Amino acid sequence: MRISLHEALERVTAEDIVAEEDLPPFDRSAVDGYAVKAHNTFGASPFSPRVLQLTKTETIDENEARQVWTGNPLPQGSDAVLMWEYTKRVEDQVEAWSPVTPSENVSKRGEDIQRGEVAIKMGTRLKPHHIGLLAALGITHVNVVKKPMVAILSTGSELVELGQKPRPNQIIDVNRLILSGMCLELGAHPIDLGIAKDNFDEISAKIQEGMKKADVIVTTGGTSVGYTDVVHTAINQIGAPGVIAHGIAMRPGMPTALAILQNKPVVVLSGNPVAAMVGFEVFARPVLLKLLGVESEPRPMVKARLTRRVPSALGRRVFLRVQVFEREEEFFAEPVRVKGAGVLTTMTKSNGYVIIPENREGLEEGEIVIVHLFDKMGGA
Amino acid sequence: MRISLHEALERVTAEDIVAEEDLPPFDRSAVDGYAVKAHNTFGASPFSPRVLQLTKTETIDENEARQVWTGNPLPQGSDAVLMWEYTKRVEDQVEAWSPVTPSENVSKRGEDIQRGEVAIKMGTRLKPHHIGLLAALGITHVNVVKKPMVAILSTGSELVELGQKPRPNQIIDVNRLILSGMCLELGAHPIDLGIAKDNFDEISAKIQEGMKKADVIVTTGGTSVGYTDVVHTAINQIGAPGVIAHGIAMRPGMPTALAILQNKPVVVLSGNPVAAMVGFEVFARPVLLKLLGVESEPRPMVKARLTRRVPSALGRRVFLRVQVFEREEEFFAEPVRVKGAGVLTTMTKSNGYVIIPENREGLEEGEIVIVHLFDKMGGA
Repeated sequence: MRISLHEALERVTAEDIVAEEDLPPFDRSAVDGYAVKAHNTFGASPFSPRVLQLTKTETIDENEARQVWTGNPLPQGSDAVLMWEYTKRVEDQVEAWSPVTPSENVSKRGEDIQRGEVAIKMGTRLKPHHIGLLAALGITHVNVVKKPMVAILSTGSELVELGQKPRPNQIIDVNRLILSGMCLELGAHPIDLGIAKDNFDEISAKIQEGMKKADVIVTTGGTSVGYTDVVHTAINQIGAPGVIAHGIAMRPGMPTALAILQNKPVVVLSGNPVAAMVGFEVFARPVLLKLLGVESEPRPMVKARLTRRVPSALGRRVFLRVQVFEREEEFFAEPVRVKGAGVLTTMTKSNGYVIIPENREGLEEGEIVIVHLFDKMGGA
Repeated sequence: MRISLHEALERVTAEDIVAEEDLPPFDRSAVDGYAVKAHNTFGASPFSPRVLQLTKTETIDENEARQVWTGNPLPQGSDAVLMWEYTKRVEDQVEAWSPVTPSENVSKRGEDIQRGEVAIKMGTRLKPHHIGLLAALGITHVNVVKKPMVAILSTGSELVELGQKPRPNQIIDVNRLILSGMCLELGAHPIDLGIAKDNFDEISAKIQEGMKKADVIVTTGGTSVGYTDVVHTAINQIGAPGVIAHGIAMRPGMPTALAILQNKPVVVLSGNPVAAMVGFEVFARPVLLKLLGVESEPRPMVKARLTRRVPSALGRRVFLRVQVFEREEEFFAEPVRVKGAGVLTTMTKSNGYVIIPENREGLEEGEIVIVHLFDKMGGA
């Protein structure tokens, strides 16, 4: 879709954008000063300045100088610019106190980008500096990728909406809000399917509604091992291939499942908010980036020293939450103590995660780990 | 200002938010399985299971078990949950194949957060996981900081609006678009003051308009050394203290100036887009974060190995643009070659900057540097 450059911040380009002109479009002065013929300044010094005649004509002749500001086109006949700081004006003459070489202090036509070059590649998420370059090229509109639509469904008879007072046995559904935030942060468009009770017909109807409205369906809840596996049953009855993977050797997020219905991905996440976030990060995020046309967008990574020993689960890939901080130009990762499963404060007290591979029983104190940051880094 | 939690993503909290209840609000099962008295399972193994009587009563008695799902309240009389995987159901009895200790597989009341604890601190930029925690606590509305209003003015008789065809001697104004994008990314609200010609009255009127509408004024252009310093003159005539600093020992961005008018900060940036971006980063960004109430929000930092030698300018703090990439778990920083001053592609070809201190003549190949990331990290 074609949109104004003014609306394009954080959108992803749908094509290579080619420069239709040189930037700068002409040789121009890179400084404030005087356009000159470089060879007229050779040998100049504060003790024996070269004296040039000031002119306002279009063309610079031998031993002439013309005043220019940064960005002004270089007058014909000149090939360099003498910086204002190295000159002295004496009536209609200018003393050059320093020599310049040809092209010195000149931004050459096309030095930033040349006509026909790709200015911005397809699949670029447009940041302010990208938009600046496009504007400088006179580009007013860009083709961007349509935002992927993500239908989000929470399942569970125990769930109530935020704003309702949960009775004993009930809990507030937080996953739709979290996952919709994660979609927005990626530049996807969340669609709220609400809460479905643990009831085959209700879940099936909601998923089919999601398939009509969205490019991707994300469900949470109803995926536990011992649970009445009503989400999976619903998906498999809607069509083939249905659930293609279930039970992932990771922690948290083990009960995550992946399905495909009418070529649309369905990501089935745990009802546990922390496991749902990790499952989204590992499985839904790459799908959405793919739909956005972004080839790869790793989270910022930082190498940090682990502040204490951490046991892990052999045979499972563990997503360890840590708080990274900087102290005297060293980075440290403090593992967040997990008091219990699904503790939301493990997310709010951390700013990144470390992936502990399946073949490790744990990480040692002082070990250097790579942290994937999902929130700002702290100082200490 | 008080807003719905549904609108609060990326907003900054204006107060400490205190939990008004325990989370979880009651002891609950952390797994799918059977609530039991732990001591009834001691000694259990697959070879000599302990046999428990299934019950559906509210209270668990000696040698009884009741089925629970993840999140269910722990029934009275029980103190642990036997995971479904380590049990076998035989009619109305359950075989425990493994012992559990008291509190095992139980999320204790208040283990995530306790009533009266600060759940989210003042000055937190709300990410999806923060919103999840607030929702879990039943919080529907939050007090957030009003977005700072930033009036942005470009000055320069040579500037034309994007969409107009520049004549020779004219250039498209790109700085307002870039700076407004940088404001948006910080969560500030940009106000467009348009372009003012290099004319005292016009600039003065625009700055005064900005002071009426905004909390911060940002101008670009008209700051060069040799230039008719009309922006500074305009600021100083509007009031005291006016310009408080001018000419910063940095590169790019040397002609940056800082002013205060009626207690409002005025950041006077270079007309060169790259210098304007660096000046905004160094001076306007901290001001806006302060107004947002965010104590500190460093850009993601990564230590990387410099791929080649880079000369610097002794006596100036240099902001070197680099492209950081990861290869086999090592991070490298490739300095972007600068063909000329103010080349916009040095920003689009880089994803971070290295600060070279004033007392260094340059950086060595292979030196480990700290990179501040402003765009995504690439692979290689």
